[in-house]
Amino acid sequence: MCRWMAYHGEPVYLESLLFKQEHSLIHQSLSARKSEVTVNADGFGLGWYDEREEPGLYHEVLPAWSDSNLKSLARHIKSGLFFAHVRASTGTETNRSNCHPFSYKNWLFMHNGQIGGYESLRWQMDRLIPEHLYNHRHGATDSEVIFLLMIANGLESNPEQAITVTLEQIISMMKQKKIEEPLRFTAVLSNGEEIIAVRFSSDDQAPSLYCKQFDNHIVIGSEPLDLSSESWTLVPAGHVAKIKENRFHIQSLPELLKMTA
Amino acid sequence: MCRWMAYHGEPVYLESLLFKQEHSLIHQSLSARKSEVTVNADGFGLGWYDEREEPGLYHEVLPAWSDSNLKSLARHIKSGLFFAHVRASTGTETNRSNCHPFSYKNWLFMHNGQIGGYESLRWQMDRLIPEHLYNHRHGATDSEVIFLLMIANGLESNPEQAITVTLEQIISMMKQKKIEEPLRFTAVLSNGEEIIAVRFSSDDQAPSLYCKQFDNHIVIGSEPLDLSSESWTLVPAGHVAKIKENRFHIQSLPELLKMTA
Amino acid sequence: MCRWMAYHGEPVYLESLLFKQEHSLIHQSLSARKSEVTVNADGFGLGWYDEREEPGLYHEVLPAWSDSNLKSLARHIKSGLFFAHVRASTGTETNRSNCHPFSYKNWLFMHNGQIGGYESLRWQMDRLIPEHLYNHRHGATDSEVIFLLMIANGLESNPEQAITVTLEQIISMMKQKKIEEPLRFTAVLSNGEEIIAVRFSSDDQAPSLYCKQFDNHIVIGSEPLDLSSESWTLVPAGHVAKIKENRFHIQSLPELLKMTA
Amino acid sequence: MCRWMAYHGEPVYLESLLFKQEHSLIHQSLSARKSEVTVNADGFGLGWYDEREEPGLYHEVLPAWSDSNLKSLARHIKSGLFFAHVRASTGTETNRSNCHPFSYKNWLFMHNGQIGGYESLRWQMDRLIPEHLYNHRHGATDSEVIFLLMIANGLESNPEQAITVTLEQIISMMKQKKIEEPLRFTAVLSNGEEIIAVRFSSDDQAPSLYCKQFDNHIVIGSEPLDLSSESWTLVPAGHVAKIKENRFHIQSLPELLKMTA
Repeated sequence: MCRWMAYHGEPVYLESLLFKQEHSLIHQSLSARKSEVTVNADGFGLGWYDEREEPGLYHEVLPAWSDSNLKSLARHIKSGLFFAHVRASTGTETNRSNCHPFSYKNWLFMHNGQIGGYESLRWQMDRLIPEHLYNHRHGATDSEVIFLLMIANGLESNPEQAITVTLEQIISMMKQKKIEEPLRFTAVLSNGEEIIAVRFSSDDQAPSLYCKQFDNHIVIGSEPLDLSSESWTLVPAGHVAKIKENRFHIQSLPELLKMTA
Repeated sequence: MCRWMAYHGEPVYLESLLFKQEHSLIHQSLSARKSEVTVNADGFGLGWYDEREEPGLYHEVLPAWSDSNLKSLARHIKSGLFFAHVRASTGTETNRSNCHPFSYKNWLFMHNGQIGGYESLRWQMDRLIPEHLYNHRHGATDSEVIFLLMIANGLESNPEQAITVTLEQIISMMKQKKIEEPLRFTAVLSNGEEIIAVRFSSDDQAPSLYCKQFDNHIVIGSEPLDLSSESWTLVPAGHVAKIKENRFHIQSLPELLKMTA
Repeated sequence: MCRWMAYHGEPVYLESLLFKQEHSLIHQSLSARKSEVTVNADGFGLGWYDEREEPGLYHEVLPAWSDSNLKSLARHIKSGLFFAHVRASTGTETNRSNCHPFSYKNWLFMHNGQIGGYESLRWQMDRLIPEHLYNHRHGATDSEVIFLLMIANGLESNPEQAITVTLEQIISMMKQKKIEEPLRFTAVLSNGEEIIAVRFSSDDQAPSLYCKQFDNHIVIGSEPLDLSSESWTLVPAGHVAKIKENRFHIQSLPELLKMTA
Repeated sequence: MCRWMAYHGEPVYLESLLFKQEHSLIHQSLSARKSEVTVNADGFGLGWYDEREEPGLYHEVLPAWSDSNLKSLARHIKSGLFFAHVRASTGTETNRSNCHPFSYKNWLFMHNGQIGGYESLRWQMDRLIPEHLYNHRHGATDSEVIFLLMIANGLESNPEQAITVTLEQIISMMKQKKIEEPLRFTAVLSNGEEIIAVRFSSDDQAPSLYCKQFDNHIVIGSEPLDLSSESWTLVPAGHVAKIKENRFHIQSLPELLKMTA
């Protein structure tokens, strides 16, 4: 399983979240408390918004804890909305094209989870990517194709519906192929203004998703960043958390999907 | 343009060809004599046959001349049939998945050239890859998809025909999209026993292909490895060179294609 | 030979200098106009000042032109004083520890040139590094040891003198070892407020150093960034250029050294 | 703590030891059973002997488990005497110069352990490296300087004594600096014919060292390669294991050192 965190609030140096926390993402990358896999050393990524419309991106295949560039960048880049991700590969190669977050115009996306039987679905899923989006397919991960399908399904105008339709498409392909492994999907998206995070699984073991309101910012992520996990809100499976103007709001995914799942 | 060389003959240490030539591939990677692009620093690759059926592979994104591993491997690996390639990217990212040679079972493939307008054909070309070959699509290069289409078109049983049919498919897609840039394709394949090299272009500027018979081996490549280029045979455009049992034989590509081109 | 540029003036996105110039450093890294070596692909580095006292740093071993991170960082990082460097190794390994610029507290340093016979001087030079600075010796380059010796020789209080004394030390060691190759040294330093650049050689072939005043900024570097080299001031050998408050001033190196040289 | 293994016996493909064991080094690199640190992802290295006098070397900064080159090399390289090492950095940077095994002429060396207070000893230790060996100091690790001191102390003619004298030198420097952390040193050396492994610590917690005799080969390493650790011989602290002609022999380190320690 991968790990990720997203920040929304007053602009801060990235290091204050990435390194200076009891249980920061960099510490997590070395050993996990709430996840099954112990090491996240198969690539790392940052995405951050500033004055530019499209986000800044930094991807690296070295383990996050040994990347001297990351340390300096996190100390010098300030942002009021940023994403960070550490990867534990579920099969695809460790190269920069396979590192999260993925971007499209002003959008960022990253993901923890796995499409059951992805190897046998990849051909079919890639064929659903419309021609005008295909040159954004840089790598071979399930995460990137999910993102491109969400864009094809209207992410820019109606994110919740695009997410729902995309998850349904995938579940339906899995059924056709009689795949019994689950679709697990805990993901986060942003257009540079608001953050939308989803926690979903086709079985009852959705990867965790925690959210916490601080005075001047909100953090959402696959794990709490401090050791008092009771102070964090666990987003229920099948729900979406939306973060905007220093508030977060949790709502269930559209009905349609719940029926399918 | 990329550069490559292939060796067939008495087993030798790879370094004798890669480093110890007046105009070796490593020297070529720094400055070209017969090619338009001056630097080949966008990745490097080796493929070699030994007792195993499938070839050994080594891919690296560092420039070949500064890779200490390459120097040691070339000094310690011996082979009677090997491929080496230095890449100058025509657009896709520098990562190991995009480095030549590509492999499939006992086959190796590498390539110098370019599909005109590839960006606008990639979607369509990837859709021609049959489902059972799709998990061999690791990167995003035109070279890799050409190789997979050749396999789909019967490479293992009739290589010349597979090459011809594949080139025709590509030219036909280019015509449909009204692409005016040429298809340039100088490539080499091996099944571990014989080498098949092709020199082709849809215009009259096929990338160069040189072949030379030595006492106990034959070398074929995008450029001569020594400075006496007159001692090398220039394979004519639209022709195939086949190397087997220490002889090379040049023949024209099947009629069908010549009509199309 | 390496190439480098330094910028002082109104804060700008790094890309405006690194990518958006006729003859930008990234273009230069592929092919040189005024230098003997054609390719600078043995590592890359950035150093920039912002609100923090110590500079930000980014070092990469990939060729600058194929580093997707560099493209995004240069588009999102703004600075009013920054350094960029592309390396063509003179022997030491391509790894991040050997990439310029080097830093110490609030200081940055980078360099084009070479100590003649460095291999036979390295032992002696490293022994001149005082104990309290020794843990700043991360790599094995001549550039890094020159920087540490300048710090040992009082860089923080009197830069010109520290430079002079250090060059004299090196020349004297070279004489002892009867090295006949020259000491060539075109370098730039900053404490975050002013820039000091030096052009020096123990023979009459000091590497080039060009400076140009624009409306709101000054650029200094190993080569002009546009094709009108006559609009750039060539700093004479044996001279120092100082840049401060949007003015540059050229003066000769202290007498002492001129006598030695 | 790092992990390592060395093989002596009938030539085999490296993969049979590196990948095809219950508890192979690659599996170990992901999670440890007998060591305090859980992840070894700060670089990887191989050294192997073949017909050449000096060994082949392969160093990589990617985690061993995600390096596609390693998988292919281990499948195609055969050797009757080879070393493998996975690194968990104790402070110095993750780059190839800092990866084990280190080599000198026909010798290989690798190491698990740590010099207590190395940061404050590095200056002094580097000054002990004689001039003629100094250009073999490529990185900044304690391991490399220990190896160079052993060579200076006569490794090539009397290995046990060179090891003893070197450990004494280090302990004596540590005493002078009043360092209270221990010197822990479990290391292995070879000249291409025999293997010498040492287990030592200045306190009573020497890193583990296990040895096992198989029918046609012997394996020695920081941990057993299978789950039946009772079938492995634990080399006692303060002892040396020598492997030659398919036999291993354990003896105590020379008296001198035992008195010092």
